[in-house]
Amino acid sequence: METSQKTIFPKGKKNEIPYFTGISYLQMLMTDEKNFDCSIGNVTFEKGCRNNWHSHPGGQILLVTDGEGYYQEKGNPARIIKAGDVIEIKPDVIHWHGATPRSEMTHIAISTRTSLGPAVWGAPVTDEEYKNCEQ
Amino acid sequence: METSQKTIFPKGKKNEIPYFTGISYLQMLMTDEKNFDCSIGNVTFEKGCRNNWHSHPGGQILLVTDGEGYYQEKGNPARIIKAGDVIEIKPDVIHWHGATPRSEMTHIAISTRTSLGPAVWGAPVTDEEYKNCEQ
Repeated sequence: METSQKTIFPKGKKNEIPYFTGISYLQMLMTDEKNFDCSIGNVTFEKGCRNNWHSHPGGQILLVTDGEGYYQEKGNPARIIKAGDVIEIKPDVIHWHGATPRSEMTHIAISTRTSLGPAVWGAPVTDEEYKNCEQ
Repeated sequence: METSQKTIFPKGKKNEIPYFTGISYLQMLMTDEKNFDCSIGNVTFEKGCRNNWHSHPGGQILLVTDGEGYYQEKGNPARIIKAGDVIEIKPDVIHWHGATPRSEMTHIAISTRTSLGPAVWGAPVTDEEYKNCEQ
């Protein structure tokens, strides 16, 4: 298993979820949704990688642990996120997250109230949308 | 604010919750229980520090990010926990956690299904119970 020196939790395997542009890695840390009504995964995005626009019926919290990335909610400009940042994604808010072109980014993703349903995936973030993050 | 070099998230202020033996620090990272039905705190235990026996009606997940500590469930031997470990504490399971005598320990505590109620606190972990962890 490939791991980064700075990564506390395992980097995991190459992420095969088809709603990502570029290369990412996923290691689930907690999946007992029955007892905890949440799931926790460690996600690493390689430079340039991002996920599609999507939303979570029960919300999600991101704890950024390494590198530098983007977070954007529909209708708002993207923001730079980095190690130590906590992102609160309220239920049904359409958004995406990923690395910048110049840095990997790792975050712990806590999907909350998962009994309300799985993520709802939309279109990929286009190269134009991604380039606009720097403006 | 005093912070450790290795700590990704802020160490926060000295923890004034009266259910701890020794010195600890607490920084809440997410408190919007209304939207997410959980809360997230970063807790650092100095050497020898531990919390009282307690349980959580909605459960709790610990993500250990630094150092070495103990985790013990009632009726079972204590186990050593260290950076990278994930501890699943099921609802109503009586337990405690803390540092070892030789190391600080930092974990992210994700209190899940907090709408079921706050932690239920019991007696302190005695010096004898604490010393028994090494056996």
